[in-house]
Amino acid sequence: MATKKFFLPESEIPTHWYNIAADLPTPPPPPLHPATHEPIGPEALAPLFPMELIKQEVSSERYIEIPDEVREIYRIWRPSPLVRATGLEKALDTPARIYYKYEGVSPAGSHKPNTAVAQAYYNKQEGVRRIATETGAGQWGSSLAFACSQFDIECKVYMVRISYEQKPYRRSLMQLWGSSVVASPSEDTNAGRTIREKDPESNGSLGIAISEAVEDAAMREDTKYSLGSVLNHVLLHQTVIGQEAIKQFEMAGDYPDVVVGCAGGGSNAAGLMFPFLKAKIEGKRDTRFLAVEPASCPSLTKGEYRYDFGDVAGLTPLMKMYTLGHGFMPPGIHAGGLRYHAMAPLLCHLYSEGFIEAVAHPQNPCFEAATLFARTEGIVPAPESSHAIKGAIDEAMAAKEAGQSRVIVFNLSGHGFLDLAAYDDYLAGRLVDDHYPEEKVREAMKDLPVIA
Amino acid sequence: MATKKFFLPESEIPTHWYNIAADLPTPPPPPLHPATHEPIGPEALAPLFPMELIKQEVSSERYIEIPDEVREIYRIWRPSPLVRATGLEKALDTPARIYYKYEGVSPAGSHKPNTAVAQAYYNKQEGVRRIATETGAGQWGSSLAFACSQFDIECKVYMVRISYEQKPYRRSLMQLWGSSVVASPSEDTNAGRTIREKDPESNGSLGIAISEAVEDAAMREDTKYSLGSVLNHVLLHQTVIGQEAIKQFEMAGDYPDVVVGCAGGGSNAAGLMFPFLKAKIEGKRDTRFLAVEPASCPSLTKGEYRYDFGDVAGLTPLMKMYTLGHGFMPPGIHAGGLRYHAMAPLLCHLYSEGFIEAVAHPQNPCFEAATLFARTEGIVPAPESSHAIKGAIDEAMAAKEAGQSRVIVFNLSGHGFLDLAAYDDYLAGRLVDDHYPEEKVREAMKDLPVIA
Repeated sequence: MATKKFFLPESEIPTHWYNIAADLPTPPPPPLHPATHEPIGPEALAPLFPMELIKQEVSSERYIEIPDEVREIYRIWRPSPLVRATGLEKALDTPARIYYKYEGVSPAGSHKPNTAVAQAYYNKQEGVRRIATETGAGQWGSSLAFACSQFDIECKVYMVRISYEQKPYRRSLMQLWGSSVVASPSEDTNAGRTIREKDPESNGSLGIAISEAVEDAAMREDTKYSLGSVLNHVLLHQTVIGQEAIKQFEMAGDYPDVVVGCAGGGSNAAGLMFPFLKAKIEGKRDTRFLAVEPASCPSLTKGEYRYDFGDVAGLTPLMKMYTLGHGFMPPGIHAGGLRYHAMAPLLCHLYSEGFIEAVAHPQNPCFEAATLFARTEGIVPAPESSHAIKGAIDEAMAAKEAGQSRVIVFNLSGHGFLDLAAYDDYLAGRLVDDHYPEEKVREAMKDLPVIA
Repeated sequence: MATKKFFLPESEIPTHWYNIAADLPTPPPPPLHPATHEPIGPEALAPLFPMELIKQEVSSERYIEIPDEVREIYRIWRPSPLVRATGLEKALDTPARIYYKYEGVSPAGSHKPNTAVAQAYYNKQEGVRRIATETGAGQWGSSLAFACSQFDIECKVYMVRISYEQKPYRRSLMQLWGSSVVASPSEDTNAGRTIREKDPESNGSLGIAISEAVEDAAMREDTKYSLGSVLNHVLLHQTVIGQEAIKQFEMAGDYPDVVVGCAGGGSNAAGLMFPFLKAKIEGKRDTRFLAVEPASCPSLTKGEYRYDFGDVAGLTPLMKMYTLGHGFMPPGIHAGGLRYHAMAPLLCHLYSEGFIEAVAHPQNPCFEAATLFARTEGIVPAPESSHAIKGAIDEAMAAKEAGQSRVIVFNLSGHGFLDLAAYDDYLAGRLVDDHYPEEKVREAMKDLPVIA
């Protein structure tokens, strides 16, 4: 009977984060000032982030030590299990060996606490008493709420109004962990008030919520801002996932041919991929890397690689990313965590260099894959993670076609216990199969700044 | 840094269930025929249960082998972790060492799949193609739905209508795993139709749902009935919990002074306690055992030890239990899984013999304990499990008072991701502190059969 679950002892929780910037064959394009279009220095970010995180953002050190206080909290759920999907393999009748790294065991039920805890720690170290952030469906907000509860930091979450009203459970989770949550647009910021004057019924959007949280942090001495994906230091913190997976594959006496992750902002895919990518960059392994994105928001597969803003309002520095345009509003798919107009610059750089492949899928085939997974492996996946499952299943079936064995690992980035309404819609045939909204993208691309 | 999580390898999943009936100092009182009041034989249960489960119900073998097919499915989540509650200990500033056995890692998020998988297996072995059951909030229904999906058995769940409408998420879970779910009272049974004729708006009750599921099973050749707690064979299957915990305490180099479990029907408490009770019965250990029940449904602490029916309709055999009367309808507390008028006969027998202690708590202090736990240990507990946490915290504070170290273990029987609305009510101060409904109990006790 093949071992199914590979658990590392707590002593094997990584002692360092892996910074792939140190190993890139070519340096990634620098972030630019939104007005001058000149490369910006760390100081530009100082009003929003603690200095230690800014240093990590621009660091070229290969390994950055994880503070003991952070590792202590990681022990609540880390090392997370690597699981052999024996039930799924049997159902697919494939010669492929499928593994998944399961991040749903964390307090908030996703990979997000890996960086939330680190960010809360560095804020605490620098005397920050309060953190403001935004959240869509609540995956990030609940993770930061948990992290702040561990370090006694006040946390204010601006939650997109439509989610605040339609998905109360993650709001409850944030409140249970002691955060204050307000529906965005709110009356608490100028940005929010201005929008509410124009449109009192506004459902809000991630872009609006970001503007509110950034304004909150910029206006208050005691408050900093925190972001749950996209930035280099966020991807850095997620590399605990891949580092553990490498050790767990040693336990299993196996090694992946393909590493799969769903990609919205890019942090969970990067977290699993980057430690494995090191060996590929060094030419020691020819592992394939596959990012799976939603057909309705296909930044890698359909976007242009050029400078754009990270937020809808255009407040952030300009970053070179595969983008659909910062003004692009993706359709309201259930995988809310993948509804980002661009992609983490580091992941984009590696994609442009040919180290990573990408595919896009509509949501029905992803839910079909997730449902098969739930029935064979017993775990209900988050809608975001269902994209990685779809990618892994396609790889397994391709291996069957080709009659070759293939070792596949994907990041099961979160569970779906708080997303069961989405499964209701799928099972009832109510899910619209989202397609690539070409017109809206073309419109949004018109607003992009032109960089000489 | 003390180890926090103790994981056993899959090879340590118990090979046998422990049957405490073999070690009881005095034999438990026999079940009686509802009409004749004569002891009943196994054949009386044959229309409802497969023979192998009936044999286990009356077995006096100490160890009953777990079939490989069942252990294979247990490997999805077992062995479950034993966790040292270091964060909670710190918050309580107690000399006590607190551990919890976490059953929330199972597919359905509670201990219920331990018996659901075994029951589905034995039904499959005896050619049963379909199983009917009832569920309140859905913990049991979703567990059996998962188990049936593993053995390709059709599953029909009669779900109490008020939960069916107010708690759609566990219904979604059952449907995701391929079960058909109907609101009870339904149009599918005589019992259901009769009640709907009288009261078309009926919210339903567990008692009504049981009657519907039992009728369904009794009327159809291809269908058996399945129960999620109370019966001997159900408690038997749960003993994997305590057997694993004993091995994990060896890893920890520790041993519990107090074993705590919440008690509704009794299966999760028994599952953790029985393997530890063996050493106490043999006089080798003087471990204490504490069952924690809700103040609104205190069968052990306030009930009478006498023969009563297991269901509201009075269809089941008579069993000697601490009971509040089978006609007693407990208040609608959030810990739906603890709303049972009596208690598992085996647990009652051990309680009457002085091997087990019991306390009752209202729901607010239990949610207060659960909230502290969520903030210190990072896991959101099921409302049922919050009673065990409250019991464990009181033990830890008593140890602090007495200035003694004390080793406490409790069964964290499930997570609360599907119960967050209850936390909303608690945090908003909307929770009514339930008390002992003495009047209603006195009324219900009038209907009990008098056994010579």
